Amino acid sequence: MELLEQRILTDGKLLPGGILKVDNFLNHQIDPLLLQEMAREWYRLFQNDGVNKILTIEASGIAAAILTGLEFKCPVVFAKKSRSKNISDRVYQTEIPSFTHGNTNTVVVSKEYLLPTDRVLLIDDFLATGAALIGLMGLVEQAGATLVGAGVAIEKRFQGGGDVLRTWDIRVESLARIVSMDDTGIQFG
Amino acid sequence: MELLEQRILTDGKLLPGGILKVDNFLNHQIDPLLLQEMAREWYRLFQNDGVNKILTIEASGIAAAILTGLEFKCPVVFAKKSRSKNISDRVYQTEIPSFTHGNTNTVVVSKEYLLPTDRVLLIDDFLATGAALIGLMGLVEQAGATLVGAGVAIEKRFQGGGDVLRTWDIRVESLARIVSMDDTGIQFG
Repeated sequence: MELLEQRILTDGKLLPGGILKVDNFLNHQIDPLLLQEMAREWYRLFQNDGVNKILTIEASGIAAAILTGLEFKCPVVFAKKSRSKNISDRVYQTEIPSFTHGNTNTVVVSKEYLLPTDRVLLIDDFLATGAALIGLMGLVEQAGATLVGAGVAIEKRFQGGGDVLRTWDIRVESLARIVSMDDTGIQFG
Repeated sequence: MELLEQRILTDGKLLPGGILKVDNFLNHQIDPLLLQEMAREWYRLFQNDGVNKILTIEASGIAAAILTGLEFKCPVVFAKKSRSKNISDRVYQTEIPSFTHGNTNTVVVSKEYLLPTDRVLLIDDFLATGAALIGLMGLVEQAGATLVGAGVAIEKRFQGGGDVLRTWDIRVESLARIVSMDDTGIQFG
């Protein structure tokens, strides 16, 4: 998606350690008009797939997910990071390792909000190793719901997660796919 | 706002300890169409006040804030809960006690995203003691920005925070104001 790629080139910052900072329009300060265009693109891509629920993970996926839910006119559920490792019989639960923070988050979704009849579109801001999406897929599976696919804002393709998911026949639609980033710049492809 | 009050009566659940559970449409599963109507109402109320930034706090304020930003066509910033108590010179920082969780969160906003020229509208899902809004007001003050007011989904008026803020001449616009909740039901006013 040209609009997002251009915005990354204009406003993104490359930090040491292979970190792409996009917190002036995507995940700290957010440009709602850009995210609305992204949501419309995911709607265009998945509109014939019977999506009736959007699932994301707090906190930075919520903005894109809510605008996508607005396009699909369906509920949006966000998986919550839990303080407790205790298993509750009222939630679906999974562990998601965070490579940015070097820890693991327990995330939960109330069983009331993921149903066997749901056709679920996952939405997230970043796809790198795929850990977050794989965790969300686990929640969908626990609920016996149907996974339609995943809409991702920025895929760091060189980290491989997206291509692993695609070998599993998961439909992953990334709006900007970065194949390399280094001192010479950011390459999409 | 009639639409929100009706939804609270239909789908909200009163739990022991004075907790109103609205997580099937507001803060776990989210109804984007309801939140869009709420955002339009805040826009109607604050449209002549020169708002050029929306500020909220992760995670449950983000959905309402992003839709409000869409109405105002302005950036949305969410204050992040920080793992670190270390003071950084790159962020504004404050402490917000959580009465639900019995702890205190350090929340931060990058100095890049709150500017002295900003006219800030705060958005949050709940107003009870006012601790979250007071914390966000502190961030606005640190930045030397102008506080326009606060848009709140549900005010638990009997907890007093909203009325304290109003005695300080803060404009608080709550879309549903609960004056009492008990076994006999929920009263608005």
